[in-house]
Amino acid sequence: MNGAESLVRTLVASGVDTCFANPGTSEMHFVAALDRVAGMRCVLGLFEGVVSGAADGYARMTDKPAATLLHLGPGLGNALANLHNARKANTPVVNIVGDHATHHRRYDAPLTSDVEGVARPMSSWVKTSMDARSVARDGAEAVAASLAGAGGVATLILPADTAWNESDGPAAPVPVAARPKVSDDALREAVSALRSGEPTLILVGGRAQRARTMELASRIAETCGARVLGPTSNARIERGAGRPRLDRIFYVVGRALEQLSDIRRVVLVGTQEPVAFFAYPGKPSLVLPPECQVHAFAKPEDDILDALERLADAVGATATSPLIQPLSRPDLPTGAITPETIGAVVGALLPENAIVVDESINAGRGVYPATIGAPAHDWLQLTGGSIGIGLPLATGAAVACPDRPVVALQADGSGMYTLQALWTQARENLNITTIIFSNRAYASLETELHNVGATNPGRTALDMLDLSRPDLDWVKLAEGMGVEAARADTVEKLIDLFGQSVKRPGPFLIEVPC
Amino acid sequence: MNGAESLVRTLVASGVDTCFANPGTSEMHFVAALDRVAGMRCVLGLFEGVVSGAADGYARMTDKPAATLLHLGPGLGNALANLHNARKANTPVVNIVGDHATHHRRYDAPLTSDVEGVARPMSSWVKTSMDARSVARDGAEAVAASLAGAGGVATLILPADTAWNESDGPAAPVPVAARPKVSDDALREAVSALRSGEPTLILVGGRAQRARTMELASRIAETCGARVLGPTSNARIERGAGRPRLDRIFYVVGRALEQLSDIRRVVLVGTQEPVAFFAYPGKPSLVLPPECQVHAFAKPEDDILDALERLADAVGATATSPLIQPLSRPDLPTGAITPETIGAVVGALLPENAIVVDESINAGRGVYPATIGAPAHDWLQLTGGSIGIGLPLATGAAVACPDRPVVALQADGSGMYTLQALWTQARENLNITTIIFSNRAYASLETELHNVGATNPGRTALDMLDLSRPDLDWVKLAEGMGVEAARADTVEKLIDLFGQSVKRPGPFLIEVPC
Repeated sequence: MNGAESLVRTLVASGVDTCFANPGTSEMHFVAALDRVAGMRCVLGLFEGVVSGAADGYARMTDKPAATLLHLGPGLGNALANLHNARKANTPVVNIVGDHATHHRRYDAPLTSDVEGVARPMSSWVKTSMDARSVARDGAEAVAASLAGAGGVATLILPADTAWNESDGPAAPVPVAARPKVSDDALREAVSALRSGEPTLILVGGRAQRARTMELASRIAETCGARVLGPTSNARIERGAGRPRLDRIFYVVGRALEQLSDIRRVVLVGTQEPVAFFAYPGKPSLVLPPECQVHAFAKPEDDILDALERLADAVGATATSPLIQPLSRPDLPTGAITPETIGAVVGALLPENAIVVDESINAGRGVYPATIGAPAHDWLQLTGGSIGIGLPLATGAAVACPDRPVVALQADGSGMYTLQALWTQARENLNITTIIFSNRAYASLETELHNVGATNPGRTALDMLDLSRPDLDWVKLAEGMGVEAARADTVEKLIDLFGQSVKRPGPFLIEVPC
Repeated sequence: MNGAESLVRTLVASGVDTCFANPGTSEMHFVAALDRVAGMRCVLGLFEGVVSGAADGYARMTDKPAATLLHLGPGLGNALANLHNARKANTPVVNIVGDHATHHRRYDAPLTSDVEGVARPMSSWVKTSMDARSVARDGAEAVAASLAGAGGVATLILPADTAWNESDGPAAPVPVAARPKVSDDALREAVSALRSGEPTLILVGGRAQRARTMELASRIAETCGARVLGPTSNARIERGAGRPRLDRIFYVVGRALEQLSDIRRVVLVGTQEPVAFFAYPGKPSLVLPPECQVHAFAKPEDDILDALERLADAVGATATSPLIQPLSRPDLPTGAITPETIGAVVGALLPENAIVVDESINAGRGVYPATIGAPAHDWLQLTGGSIGIGLPLATGAAVACPDRPVVALQADGSGMYTLQALWTQARENLNITTIIFSNRAYASLETELHNVGATNPGRTALDMLDLSRPDLDWVKLAEGMGVEAARADTVEKLIDLFGQSVKRPGPFLIEVPC
């Protein structure tokens, strides 16, 4: 068996059974091997940012990596933006990137580039296989590397001859070290903070945002009189009825400063100290008050569940009831389309066990609060600020969870970066309802332009933020890629379209002017 | 004036008057400065690969760089694939990439990444401005760096505080060294090769493919009994009636080997030794016969015109007439849509002084031969093998040359990577006729899959090459971005649509099933 087949078999043996692919010539041996190896589902994306964003969405829902299959340095380059988001989400991803045959690289053929150099900024592990007999072992190491620590992006570069030459067959999975337990010192420090009598915040991020860990955090907070919040950007929050409610730190620096102004102690669980998304002249980078003490209790890579169980024990919270959100949906709205009425439609009609993917930026701000009491669901966000994640993330989540309805809240400007994901949704008949918030502007930049002091911007500057002239028609864009779509110009129409779409299989897109 | 404004003024003073932009928060000071500085045209792209590909197309037609405006590491990441193509074309490009304020970078905010690391693989020059007073000088250096040598990608990273803090005003342009003359030794060696009596090839690439330099090459070849060819992938060929004809080395390795089998001497002018695009088991990387001597006469960065003038003098070719292609168009075809009939339509109807952008890969193979005798035009190709260049390249060429009709020959698979370029074509009302070769497959990969020995591929492998299920509808995709479009199912319809479109302003897209 050749190197490519040994790799596919090794990936499957290591638990990687899904590959999001945009292959080229150098990856044809890998593609050919797919016919000979059972157990690997391969999903085609028509652009590499779709592939990497889908791998992120898949792993956020399964806690195991998908593979990507990418074509040399430029293909990996196109994947980088969503790999950046995956990296910031601590998502395990295994990139398989083809390269020129080892003996061909010296000739500077057109596609030659420094593939490792392209990989490094967004990868926690990078390796180029040296020969066909190393490929299987390298693949097993890549899977383990993606799962090491808090989870990360592992990139394995496969020169074409390592794929086509004879191998020694598949390699055994490489064991992944168990997540470390937090130290007794850290535990004592957290207990001391919670019992300090000072206003204390438990900031839960990453793996601490699952229902079970958030219940523990809620118990601890209730026992000690602390608050619980999440960071602004989160990989996956288990929320809704029957679970603790999680509010997040505001994105806008001024609002975050106000929100956190009374806090004097912060216990970090699965996340880092909160910082402003951007710096602004005369505003601080850190959003906690200067006098606040920060206690790094459980790091993202730690055994979070164990840490919170021990902390709950230590503060005597085991018997305390967590604050659980009851089922509570908004009424179906009437009136104009606004962020609030769109939120109410989603809150009123969100199906059981949904996955919500939120890249709605400004325009979707009404949906998170309106779904607090909706049936239990997962909430996935843009984590690294690199827009263009929503449609791919929804695609990957739907591949991971074929029995769950996926709702994608998508701003129009960011949706345009990776709109090709719609085609994959159609091909795979994924159960995704996309709401496009069509404000025809980079609306957040209008605010930012004002923030930098351009209070009366002229036509030239405004043109850079304006997505009209011509208007984007998302119904046609979706239909052009085989996804049924319609425009909802009224709340009644939105209720009708959204209500129908979440009940039936397959993708559907609703463009909402707002 | 702040750093951003000092930079914009410096760019304009240095001859950079066009900026292709996809800005974010960190770039708002640059955007705001556009209102205060005359002389900078800013063109919005809805995806960064559009921006970088357009900058490439602009500079190929003007021989001077455009600026790009990109948002931190991920924005630059999205631009990399087409920057790779620009790098391989020796195109001057000046990237302006915003980053977090210097004091904010240490906090690992969501958008933080190693921007220099992302830039380095595709840039010949990378610098991060240290403070606002350095920005103008750094900008002038970036322009000069993009024009140094054969031309390249210069990336200037602008932390937000260097944009918003007070500067010392604009900087003077940095002089660019004249292109070096080829040495007398190299000249003597080339003369000796041409007079060796052995079968000799003059391989002209890069700047040697302008009409005037190709006339000199043709004179030399006629005098010495040599052949003239171009490489497989070329940035810009001036061709058509009234100019020397330039055939290219075949892409398929076997055909290239045959084409070059009798060659014993090669004189390189503005290009490197030809190599196979990909390596294949048992096939050579080099396509020249092993016994062929290679003479690196004029390197891409040399003064090519001077080199060819001196060589023509030295071999006594000054009075020889070049072989000039007469005006000769194919008849308008009838019958089925085939690569040949599509080629004949374009050849029969190509307007005067057109710019042809060719990313038609397999399906458009009939157009190059059918346009040999069309009115004089420029022919721009994919140079680095990173597909997704065609629609952006056409966009940039049309911005550069508003008085010339642009014809884009675009394969459907590669068109999907950067289809957002159509929106920019509509917004700027660019005079571009796009023909989409809609074969609904990564057709070149079908051949490659066969080449790697998968002679009877199964459904799983074939699915990775198949763009049907669902079919892409390019008419809807174009209309969704404000570009008029129609489908040509017959040759007669194609004649009608193409003939009308090239005569009127504004973008139009024709989807041709093939």
